[in-house]
Amino acid sequence: MNVSFLGLGAIGAPMARHLAKPPFSLAVWNRTKSRADAFGTETGARVAGSPADAVRGASVVITCLPTSHEVEALLDGPDGVLAGLAPQSLFIDCTSGDPATSRRIAARLGENGTAFMDAPVSGGVSGAQQGALTVMCGADEATFERARPVIEAFGKKIVRCGPVGAGDAVKAVNQALLGIHIWALSEGLVALSKAGISPRLALDVINASSGRSNVSQNLFTERVITRAFPRTFKLALMEKDVTIAAEFARENRVPSPLIQSVADLLRVARQALGEDADHVETVKLLEEWAGCEVQG
Amino acid sequence: MNVSFLGLGAIGAPMARHLAKPPFSLAVWNRTKSRADAFGTETGARVAGSPADAVRGASVVITCLPTSHEVEALLDGPDGVLAGLAPQSLFIDCTSGDPATSRRIAARLGENGTAFMDAPVSGGVSGAQQGALTVMCGADEATFERARPVIEAFGKKIVRCGPVGAGDAVKAVNQALLGIHIWALSEGLVALSKAGISPRLALDVINASSGRSNVSQNLFTERVITRAFPRTFKLALMEKDVTIAAEFARENRVPSPLIQSVADLLRVARQALGEDADHVETVKLLEEWAGCEVQG
Amino acid sequence: MNVSFLGLGAIGAPMARHLAKPPFSLAVWNRTKSRADAFGTETGARVAGSPADAVRGASVVITCLPTSHEVEALLDGPDGVLAGLAPQSLFIDCTSGDPATSRRIAARLGENGTAFMDAPVSGGVSGAQQGALTVMCGADEATFERARPVIEAFGKKIVRCGPVGAGDAVKAVNQALLGIHIWALSEGLVALSKAGISPRLALDVINASSGRSNVSQNLFTERVITRAFPRTFKLALMEKDVTIAAEFARENRVPSPLIQSVADLLRVARQALGEDADHVETVKLLEEWAGCEVQG
Amino acid sequence: MNVSFLGLGAIGAPMARHLAKPPFSLAVWNRTKSRADAFGTETGARVAGSPADAVRGASVVITCLPTSHEVEALLDGPDGVLAGLAPQSLFIDCTSGDPATSRRIAARLGENGTAFMDAPVSGGVSGAQQGALTVMCGADEATFERARPVIEAFGKKIVRCGPVGAGDAVKAVNQALLGIHIWALSEGLVALSKAGISPRLALDVINASSGRSNVSQNLFTERVITRAFPRTFKLALMEKDVTIAAEFARENRVPSPLIQSVADLLRVARQALGEDADHVETVKLLEEWAGCEVQG
Repeated sequence: MNVSFLGLGAIGAPMARHLAKPPFSLAVWNRTKSRADAFGTETGARVAGSPADAVRGASVVITCLPTSHEVEALLDGPDGVLAGLAPQSLFIDCTSGDPATSRRIAARLGENGTAFMDAPVSGGVSGAQQGALTVMCGADEATFERARPVIEAFGKKIVRCGPVGAGDAVKAVNQALLGIHIWALSEGLVALSKAGISPRLALDVINASSGRSNVSQNLFTERVITRAFPRTFKLALMEKDVTIAAEFARENRVPSPLIQSVADLLRVARQALGEDADHVETVKLLEEWAGCEVQG
Repeated sequence: MNVSFLGLGAIGAPMARHLAKPPFSLAVWNRTKSRADAFGTETGARVAGSPADAVRGASVVITCLPTSHEVEALLDGPDGVLAGLAPQSLFIDCTSGDPATSRRIAARLGENGTAFMDAPVSGGVSGAQQGALTVMCGADEATFERARPVIEAFGKKIVRCGPVGAGDAVKAVNQALLGIHIWALSEGLVALSKAGISPRLALDVINASSGRSNVSQNLFTERVITRAFPRTFKLALMEKDVTIAAEFARENRVPSPLIQSVADLLRVARQALGEDADHVETVKLLEEWAGCEVQG
Repeated sequence: MNVSFLGLGAIGAPMARHLAKPPFSLAVWNRTKSRADAFGTETGARVAGSPADAVRGASVVITCLPTSHEVEALLDGPDGVLAGLAPQSLFIDCTSGDPATSRRIAARLGENGTAFMDAPVSGGVSGAQQGALTVMCGADEATFERARPVIEAFGKKIVRCGPVGAGDAVKAVNQALLGIHIWALSEGLVALSKAGISPRLALDVINASSGRSNVSQNLFTERVITRAFPRTFKLALMEKDVTIAAEFARENRVPSPLIQSVADLLRVARQALGEDADHVETVKLLEEWAGCEVQG
Repeated sequence: MNVSFLGLGAIGAPMARHLAKPPFSLAVWNRTKSRADAFGTETGARVAGSPADAVRGASVVITCLPTSHEVEALLDGPDGVLAGLAPQSLFIDCTSGDPATSRRIAARLGENGTAFMDAPVSGGVSGAQQGALTVMCGADEATFERARPVIEAFGKKIVRCGPVGAGDAVKAVNQALLGIHIWALSEGLVALSKAGISPRLALDVINASSGRSNVSQNLFTERVITRAFPRTFKLALMEKDVTIAAEFARENRVPSPLIQSVADLLRVARQALGEDADHVETVKLLEEWAGCEVQG
C-alpha cells in the first residue's frame, strides 16, 4: 500500500517509521528538507520535494503538523496536496487540530472524492516509538474501517469518537484537562511550599488520595520536585490545544469557567516562558508570582 | 489504653469501631445521642452523656466533626472537653479542619499541657471500614510518634506533613484538586455531549491519555455516565474544604485563580443542589447551564 | 441621494426615520415585512420586497441587524444585496458586528468596487430617536469622509477608530466594560444586601466615590433598586457583543481574565433568564445564587 | 473638644489639619515620630510620645492607619490606647478596615464603655485637604450623631451605612469596583492597542458610551495614555482593600467570580510591580503580558 507521510516532527517521525516497511511503501515530505533527507537515508522511504510530489500515487496520506492551519495551507497551489492527490484516496490528519478547520478541510477534499479523518494521537514520543499511541478518530464508520489497518501500525487504543472533528474535540478536551491539572497542582504545591510544608510529602499523600491524577502521579513526581523538567511537549502546543478546547466549548455554548481561565493563563505562561518551554514548566510562572519554588 | 471518640458520623463511626477492642478501651460521644447509643450497643463502648464525661480518664481523645468550628465549640463550658480532660493527654482531630483554627485549638489545649495533632483522613467510608485510611498529620515529631499507635488502628498510609495545621492544609489542597478535577471534567464532557460526541467513548480515551485522573477513571466512569450518583460524600463538605484551601492560598499570598474560582463555583452548586447532594452531582449544575446531560 | 436601509429593529427604525426626508430618498427592507410596510406608510419611504430590490439605484446602503452573520447572509442569492447593488456604491454596516466577519464582507464587496465601513452605534433607542448616537467607524479615511454626511443624519459623536473592523472592536470593548460593570456591581450590592446593608445607601456612596460608573450612576439607581427593569437592550445581544470582545482579545493574544469570565457568565445568565431578558436583569441570576434581592 | 489623631499618613495628615483649630484641641501621634513633630510645629497640635499619651484627656480618638490590624495592635500594652483612654469616649476609625476586625475592636472598646465607629473615607489627598471627603460610617444611630460634628470637619458626604463594620464593607466594595474597572479597561485598551487601534480614540468613544466609568473618564485619560502615572494611591493598599471585599463576599456566601478574580490578579500585580507602585500602574502588568503598551 502506497502511503504518504507529511510532517516529520518529534511525534511524526517515529510514527512514520512504522510505515517504512512492508506492507507499506512510504513517501515522506517535511518543510525542513534536511529532516526528510535524514529520515529517507535511515529508512529507505522516498523523499519528496513537495506535498504534491509526496502524495502522487499514494492511496493514503497522513499529516502530522503543529496546527490545522498548516494542514489547510498544504492543500492548494501548484505544489499542494490537491495538485497530486488521486481521487478516491484517504487523508488521515494526525495533527492536534481544531474541529472547525477539520470540517472545512474534509469538505474541500470531498470535492475531490477523497475521504478525511481527523486522528490526533496521545502518548508522546515514547508511545510513538513503541507504536502504542492512543488515536482519537473523527470520521464516518466506513472511512474509519478503511483507515484502521494504517492506524494500527502506530496506534494501540484506536477509538472512533464520532464524525469529522470529533477526534480533534476529544483531544482538545484531554489537553484542557492536562493543562488544568498542571495549573491546579501548581497552585496547591506552591501554597504548601510557601507555608513550609514539603511538596514531596504532600504529593505522596495526594497520590494516595482522591485528588490524584496522571499529572500528580507522574509529571510532578518525576519532573517538578526533582527540577528535572525534560522538554518533551511544548507549552506553546498545549496552549494552542487548550485554546481549541475553549473555542469548542464556546461554540457549543457551554459555560466553561475553568477551561476559559486556563486557556488565558497558559497564554500568559507562554509569553513569559517562551516558545521552547516544556508544558510542565508552567509551574515556574506561578512560582515567580508567589516568590517560592516547589522543590523536594 | 483509654481512648475517647467524639463524632460518630459516616466516617467517624467506622473509624471508632477499630478502637472498640483491646488494647483500647473506648468511650464515645455524639451530638445525636441515639447514634452513640446504637454504637455502644453494637460495640460495647461506653456511651458518654457529654464531651466532658467522654474524655474523663482518657489518655487520647479523637474528634471527627464537620468543621473545626464544631471542634472548638466542644472545648468550653461545664460539659466541655476541657472540663474533663486530664493534663498531659493527647488530642487528635480527624476533622477536615482549617489550619488557623487548629492552631488556635492547639494553643488552648497547650495551656492544659495537652498535645494536639490535626489528622484529617482520606479514603471514604470503605477506607474507614477497612482501616485503610490515608492520614495527613500536623504535629511535632514527638506528638506524631505518640499518636501513631492509635492512628494505625484505622490508617494505612500515615504521613506527618509538618507542624500543627499542616495536615489540614494538605487535606484542603487534595480536596481542591478533587473539586477542580470534577468541575473541569464536567465542562469537557458536557461540551462533548452537546456536540453529539459520546461521553463514554471520550472517557475511555481520556483514561488512556494524559488528562486522566482519579475523577475520570473512577468517579465519572462509575457514577456519572451511569447516572448512579450514590451519595457518599457531601458537596457541602467538599465546598467547605475547598474554601479552606482558597483561604490557605490567600493567606500565603499565592495567586490561585483555579482554586479561588472553583471555591466560588462550588458555592453556587451547593446553593443550587442543596445540602444533601453528593459531591459528584456538581456536574448537574453545569448540565443545567448547558441544557445537556452527560449520559452514555 | 438614494439611500437604502435594511433592518428596521428597535434601533434601526428610528435611525432610518432621519433618512426618510430630503436630501435623502429612502428605500427600506425588513425581514418581517409588516414592520417595513408600517414604516413606509408612516414615512413615505419606498418599501422593497427583497434586499436586491431595496439597494437597486442606491448610492449608499445601511444595514442594522442582530449580528454580522445576518449581514453576510444578505449578500448572496438572487434576491441578495449583490444582485442589485450598483458598482462603486457605499455599504455602511451599523450592526454591532465582529471584526473578522466585517473584514470578510468588506473583501466580498470590494470585488464589486463597493466600499465598506463598519459603524456600530451607541446611545440606545432615545439616542437613535434624537439623532444623537455615538458612531464608531472602521474604514479608510476616504470612505469615512464619504460616509460622514449620511452618518450625521443620526449620529452626534462620529469617530473613525481605524481600518475596517475597528468600529466593531471598539464597540465590543465598550460592551464588555458594560457587562463587567453590571456583573461586578451586582456582586458588590448583593453581598452588601445579604449583610443587611442598604443597597440604596451603598449606591449613594459609591456614586460619590472612585468606583462609580455609568452603570452605578444610571442603570442600577433607576432600574435595579427600584425593581423597574425596563426592557431596553437585550441580555442576549450584550452576551453576543461580549463574546465578540472575548474572541477579539484572544485573537490578539491578550490575556483577558475578566472579559473571558464575563463572556462565560453572561452565557449562563442568558440561558437562565431567557432571550427576552434585559441586560440589566443579569443581576437576577446572582440574586438567585445568593438567595437575596437588591432592593431599596 | 479634646481630639486625638493617630496616624499622620498621606490622607491622615490633611484630615488632622482640619482638627488643629478651635473648637478642637488636638493631640497627635505617629509611628514615625518625625512626621508628628513636623505636624506639631506646623499646626501647634500637641505631639504625643505614645498612643496612651495621645488619647489621655481626649473625648474623641480618630485613627487612620494602613489596615485594621495596625489599629487593633495599638489598643494593648502599657503604651496602648486602652492604657490612656477615658471611659465613655468615642473612637472613630478612618482606616479602610475590615468588618470582622472592626467588630472585634468595637467589642474590646465596649468593655471600656467606649463607642466605636468605622468611618473609612474616599476622595484622596485633595479631598482630605479640602475637607470634602466622602465618609462611610458603621455605627448605631446615637454614636453616628455623636461623631458627626467631628467628621464634618473633614467630610462632605457623610453616610451611615449600617452597624459597626458597614462602613468598611461599603468602602471595600467601592475599592473592588475600582480595581475591577481598572483591570477590565486595561484588558480592553491593551487588546485594541495591540490590534493597532488608538487607545485615545477608543477612550474618547467609550467615555461617550455605556461602558464609561470614573476610571475611563478620569484615571486612564489623565494618567495612562499620557504615561504620567502619578503616585497618589498605592496598588498595595488597593490590593488589601479588594481582598477585604473578597472575604466579605465569601463570608456572606455570595458567589463573586469577578471580585475573587481581581483580588487574585492584584496579588500578582503587587508582587510584580512592588510596594510603591500606584494603583493605576496595574495596567503595566497586562501590558507586559501582552507585549504592547497603551499610549496615545
